[in-house]
Amino acid sequence: MTVFRIVGFGAVLVTAAVMVTGMVAAGERPTMSQVLEDSTDDDWRKPDDAYTVYMKIPGGTVILEMAPEFAPNVIENIRKLSASGFFDGTAIMRSQENYVVQWGDPLSETDEARSHGNAAANIEAEFYRAADGLDFIAIDSRDAYADQVGFVNGFPAGKDSDGERAWLTHCYGMVGVGRGMATDSGNGADLYVVTGHSPRHLDRNVVLVGRVLVGMELLTTLRRGTGPLGFYENAEQQVPIESMRFASDLPEDQHVDLRVLRTDTETFSDLVESRRYRAEEWFVDPTGRIGLCNVPIPVRTSQ
Amino acid sequence: MTVFRIVGFGAVLVTAAVMVTGMVAAGERPTMSQVLEDSTDDDWRKPDDAYTVYMKIPGGTVILEMAPEFAPNVIENIRKLSASGFFDGTAIMRSQENYVVQWGDPLSETDEARSHGNAAANIEAEFYRAADGLDFIAIDSRDAYADQVGFVNGFPAGKDSDGERAWLTHCYGMVGVGRGMATDSGNGADLYVVTGHSPRHLDRNVVLVGRVLVGMELLTTLRRGTGPLGFYENAEQQVPIESMRFASDLPEDQHVDLRVLRTDTETFSDLVESRRYRAEEWFVDPTGRIGLCNVPIPVRTSQ
Repeated sequence: MTVFRIVGFGAVLVTAAVMVTGMVAAGERPTMSQVLEDSTDDDWRKPDDAYTVYMKIPGGTVILEMAPEFAPNVIENIRKLSASGFFDGTAIMRSQENYVVQWGDPLSETDEARSHGNAAANIEAEFYRAADGLDFIAIDSRDAYADQVGFVNGFPAGKDSDGERAWLTHCYGMVGVGRGMATDSGNGADLYVVTGHSPRHLDRNVVLVGRVLVGMELLTTLRRGTGPLGFYENAEQQVPIESMRFASDLPEDQHVDLRVLRTDTETFSDLVESRRYRAEEWFVDPTGRIGLCNVPIPVRTSQ
Repeated sequence: MTVFRIVGFGAVLVTAAVMVTGMVAAGERPTMSQVLEDSTDDDWRKPDDAYTVYMKIPGGTVILEMAPEFAPNVIENIRKLSASGFFDGTAIMRSQENYVVQWGDPLSETDEARSHGNAAANIEAEFYRAADGLDFIAIDSRDAYADQVGFVNGFPAGKDSDGERAWLTHCYGMVGVGRGMATDSGNGADLYVVTGHSPRHLDRNVVLVGRVLVGMELLTTLRRGTGPLGFYENAEQQVPIESMRFASDLPEDQHVDLRVLRTDTETFSDLVESRRYRAEEWFVDPTGRIGLCNVPIPVRTSQ
């Protein structure tokens, strides 16, 4: 069999039951593979069905995890919209290179706009919240955009220097809520996913509600829209959303059995350090630094 | 016509002759659109044909610009390989989600490996160089990976705290040289492009040679490989490289007339500030911060 040269080890999303193993470590620091190999069942959590969303598109199913700690009201509105079938038959209307894909009702600004049912039309923006009460796992990193950075239950987050406000950060794969000029206009009927280098200038300007656990490749490989801001110029180019439902609204036999690495454990601290100091033999400069959006949060499935 | 809600303004690559205009500014700071509108011909440079590379794949042409300030020897080797037709008929063999696409000779490790002709098989790695002699335009940014950051002739770069070493940084769209365990094994016959959140831990571990000016969307939308590290599992999944040539080796009528925003100008400083402080009316928090890999280097074409 042909042996290929490799650039590095970038495994971010472990979607197979079999973990990547057997990388050679130089020195005593463990590699990420070793940290994951040594992890126990307690290091992994099952995402809450009440905050896990399945979105079916022609290419497959994208699975999102919501972060109710940060945007409870918008998430409840998305739950109402999803449960009422609002998203079924809507479309991905935008795919902008190195930025976002976005979906919603293509006819929202016309007389044929879909009803939002019992969901609110406007919601006070949840751009940030009080840091108080959050289990914020800080990581030591010099961040361009936030004075303190870390993770809350698997989601990347930032804090001000005084530690009073906290917010989710626009890392690759994060899910946010499109809005117009009015800050309360993002009610969850328009959603986007970050598909390029993390656009952190959007932090605290748009409500983030969660992240993609599975299926990023279904979104990132979509043709780019050729209109302004990457919107598709013709309706035929749009990618239909077949359905979007919270797992708790779906029969058990349609659930995928996922596990997400917990971020409040020693294993996670070890993982962060294994990414900061690259012990794999291939590295000649082990780096010694880590960026918030460069920390992978592994996901695995038994299927 | 339907009006869509927008997430933000992320225009990174201006490939049309018509610039995006008319965004509303709040206060006195200019937006990036205004900075570009006010730019003059002197603010733009024509990439040097001797360091511009055209790579044809089935979807179209990807145009790369090389950075001889940083990797002169590897780039000369890539020139020899390209001129001899080495790359014509090779293939993109790898597309790893949130990481890289990579191309080269799929049979390189077999008896049918292509000849490298008069190109060197091994080259001492150009991971970094002395900062002395570089026109390094620093930007004020708190960077996770480098103590000082900025641009050299349009390429993102870092420096140590003592300012002695400088290196290109793995921002989105940068082009690098795959290598094996030996640091001199990256001779340019295997190349990759960063297609995900900037993997800055690769800085100083792999030789970067340039960046993609045009055609990123042709690479980023390629199906992801399902093998380890995103390699395609079957040869039929590979994407053929029809040809790869330096512009100086191509007839004039095959050149695209490009202009790249210069980074050694006041206009560029204004652009950086327009991305640091977001004056567009849509922003409720103008950010006040900027990341190195979040600074766009606009490219335009008259075609």
